[in-house]
Amino acid sequence: MQLLRLGAPGTEHPAVRTDEGVVHDLRPITPEVDGAFLAAEGIARTRRALAAGELPVVEGEHRVGPPLAGIGKIICIGLNYSDHAAETGAEVPREPVIFLKTPDTVVGPHDEVLVPRRSVKTDWEVELGVVIGRTARYLDSEREAMDCVAGYVLSHDVSEREFQIERGGTWDKGKNCETFNPLGPWLVPADEVPDPQRLPMRLWVNGELKQDSSTKNMIFGVAEVVRYLSQFMVLRPGDLINTGTPAGVALGQPEPKPFLRAGDVVELEIDGLGRQRQQFGQA
Amino acid sequence: MQLLRLGAPGTEHPAVRTDEGVVHDLRPITPEVDGAFLAAEGIARTRRALAAGELPVVEGEHRVGPPLAGIGKIICIGLNYSDHAAETGAEVPREPVIFLKTPDTVVGPHDEVLVPRRSVKTDWEVELGVVIGRTARYLDSEREAMDCVAGYVLSHDVSEREFQIERGGTWDKGKNCETFNPLGPWLVPADEVPDPQRLPMRLWVNGELKQDSSTKNMIFGVAEVVRYLSQFMVLRPGDLINTGTPAGVALGQPEPKPFLRAGDVVELEIDGLGRQRQQFGQA
Repeated sequence: MQLLRLGAPGTEHPAVRTDEGVVHDLRPITPEVDGAFLAAEGIARTRRALAAGELPVVEGEHRVGPPLAGIGKIICIGLNYSDHAAETGAEVPREPVIFLKTPDTVVGPHDEVLVPRRSVKTDWEVELGVVIGRTARYLDSEREAMDCVAGYVLSHDVSEREFQIERGGTWDKGKNCETFNPLGPWLVPADEVPDPQRLPMRLWVNGELKQDSSTKNMIFGVAEVVRYLSQFMVLRPGDLINTGTPAGVALGQPEPKPFLRAGDVVELEIDGLGRQRQQFGQA
Repeated sequence: MQLLRLGAPGTEHPAVRTDEGVVHDLRPITPEVDGAFLAAEGIARTRRALAAGELPVVEGEHRVGPPLAGIGKIICIGLNYSDHAAETGAEVPREPVIFLKTPDTVVGPHDEVLVPRRSVKTDWEVELGVVIGRTARYLDSEREAMDCVAGYVLSHDVSEREFQIERGGTWDKGKNCETFNPLGPWLVPADEVPDPQRLPMRLWVNGELKQDSSTKNMIFGVAEVVRYLSQFMVLRPGDLINTGTPAGVALGQPEPKPFLRAGDVVELEIDGLGRQRQQFGQA
């Protein structure tokens, strides 16, 4: 079962897709897939409503929006794959590196992504996104941490490396440009992902495979990341964690580095979490 | 005229205070003081409703909440006063340094602030907050930038210096602890602040004056900050910018640095924007 949101930007409505690929309208039980829905046992209610035949089938073709609405915050883990740390010339971190994206950077999985004006180093990053379903504050264990995870989502942490690294600030300056966080297509419930540390992930640019790894290569796994973050901030239902990217980004390539330009097409996928495709445009 | 929000946390209602200190209920014209209200000429509508006698007087004592609801993002400018850059041992930045706070760190101006668990370096920072009232994207001039400013607010950018500087990440790790952004008491309309670069600001800890400066000492003024930020991200109605703090924080003092502990009382003010008082507690 996968949760998703269908319709034009800003007017999406919630839906659920069965493992057979049939899409049902979720509006009979909720106006949104958001933190409040997840915290109020929304996933269990969705299963019951599906089983009871209470959700009408959605007909026709619809744009797929980001699968989560009302995102409170997006916390990102930097350098969380040792091969990616190495390709960027950074040391492997001793504890998680945190930066932030703002929720208004989120777009649908197939929406246009804009290369910012005056950007010369726009880059890609396939990532496992973790969606929080329960408030997490000073958690003591990784077991408690996993109880706070509602589900998983494919997330594209688009990055501008000059803005991020060479403009005298923290990384946030290169992580928050308009459209810089395609999300989706699906939110997959945590209990339908048997092992979040065993998910193959891939990214292509103009059809050429650039990133080809697995979440098993994370330095700090999902449970440790959630437990760790809860020591520094409160995690709330509807928050999203981007858990870092493996090797293969443009920044890690030999010169001339193949940064993205308007017209480029990026495709990415994580097994079980679906696939994204973005044509890049110019802001 | 000052906009504010009154009531228990999470159930505040909007109000407006006249320069004579009389508080009127704003619910006859809006359910909230938020980005949508500001973008829809909310300040002008408030003035008309006040003049027409359409807003009943609020009687009694009420908790003062943060004066802005539904904050989309909080962008912070680091090292934006040369004396503060010097006291922290940092160079004066050549362009604005950006970091982020998440909106769920915001509390009312007189609410308890929590020293995080395992914190030994919790610090204070009085700041001028800028509230965005109109979408800003790739602005060309400082004049356009000022047209996007809805108003000003007193903001306390509470910071944990060990988390911020010594824990291997970007500054965000020490800026986003629970309750770390007291805001208010008032949102003052931009056209009632004749010169945002001429506002005296002060902060006391346990009655002792620690910061005593003016927004005239900013390196990058409000107009330049708004114009600059709009090159890297979209500013939207209801976004908040914390514009940086002057010298006098604990980090800048001789050893042993007087970091905050549970029981400490911090008071701060900016002329015309009101005053805050927080008793610190332990998370």
